[in-house]
Amino acid sequence: MSDLEELPSRYRANLINSCTGYKSLNLIGTQDSDGNKNLAIFNSIIHLGSNPALIGFTFRPLTVQRDTYKNIKETGVFTVNHVQEVFIDKAHQTAAKYPTNTSEFDAAGLEAEYLEGTLAPFVKESNIKYSCTYVNEYPIIENGCIMVVGAINALYLNESFIAPDGWIDLVKANSIAGIGIDGYVKGVAPIRYEYAKPETKPQKK
Amino acid sequence: MSDLEELPSRYRANLINSCTGYKSLNLIGTQDSDGNKNLAIFNSIIHLGSNPALIGFTFRPLTVQRDTYKNIKETGVFTVNHVQEVFIDKAHQTAAKYPTNTSEFDAAGLEAEYLEGTLAPFVKESNIKYSCTYVNEYPIIENGCIMVVGAINALYLNESFIAPDGWIDLVKANSIAGIGIDGYVKGVAPIRYEYAKPETKPQKK
Repeated sequence: MSDLEELPSRYRANLINSCTGYKSLNLIGTQDSDGNKNLAIFNSIIHLGSNPALIGFTFRPLTVQRDTYKNIKETGVFTVNHVQEVFIDKAHQTAAKYPTNTSEFDAAGLEAEYLEGTLAPFVKESNIKYSCTYVNEYPIIENGCIMVVGAINALYLNESFIAPDGWIDLVKANSIAGIGIDGYVKGVAPIRYEYAKPETKPQKK
Repeated sequence: MSDLEELPSRYRANLINSCTGYKSLNLIGTQDSDGNKNLAIFNSIIHLGSNPALIGFTFRPLTVQRDTYKNIKETGVFTVNHVQEVFIDKAHQTAAKYPTNTSEFDAAGLEAEYLEGTLAPFVKESNIKYSCTYVNEYPIIENGCIMVVGAINALYLNESFIAPDGWIDLVKANSIAGIGIDGYVKGVAPIRYEYAKPETKPQKK
């Protein structure tokens, strides 16, 4: 397919959103300076660096009010919470366009919790989550999107998910991956490989 | 865990690379202006927009020569090829530090193919792949990484993977997701949800 611009717009959106591969699925929790909570699903969170520990994620153009963006700019903090199998439906529901003063925690049926003084709500049901501080943003001039960079502060997860060398078994945690705009998929049978070297064959850990 | 800086560096790298969730896994194919081929695995490719069709991915700081980056700057084109179950080991092996004049296609045992005049090699074994043109780059000043933005030109995949509305079933295609630096995982049992609305409950497609 090479005439992508000529595809019907919904078809193209599904196709192009799926063709980059699996996506991370996370709920971002924020609140405004009056304490109104917001929760929204994002499939664009990526690793940017581990020292310092940095993540990035994108917002679509700010042509409408985006509560998550507004709250992050207002307070400087947010939480990232893995979407997991038992609450996929509720995580998906946070994408509905609720009025600004509605908390998606309440509307979708997820519980907010506050941990160690972080001024943004976590998702209690999620068993891998962390708090972040806003660091910077990069406007993507090609389409008006914005990439926000955040620094990871505190990480909360069950120790049983962590391998002796720090690797997290997301399959054991029942974290979910995304496909396209509206697809959810379970991971199975994770394998790891030893550090690749020119003189050796690929070797499973 | 809140003292992330105090963790041993390898442990922290594994932990922070895993905590953002599942990653896309793709092989980027390029060649230099003399026709020397390069192939490298990337776990950072993300969707940036569908109209125009844009992707982004990150390079670590250019403190050493990065052949993929150099070739993209030289020729302006690259290919993106999904990592799939039957060649995970070979895809992983492309990460080894081969000399610049070694083709990772040959070294890892993957076949290069050229499609419709694209001046960069595709991976023949991959059944979801597309060609891109270099559009722009954004230096991430916080850690010296670079995000490259590419425009999707032509997309090649088996029609049987595509749902009637354009969504691609990556599970059917046997595409693989990544966990952390060295983990590979299969997807199973994909589900999709209808567009979320405030007045309706989440509903499977």
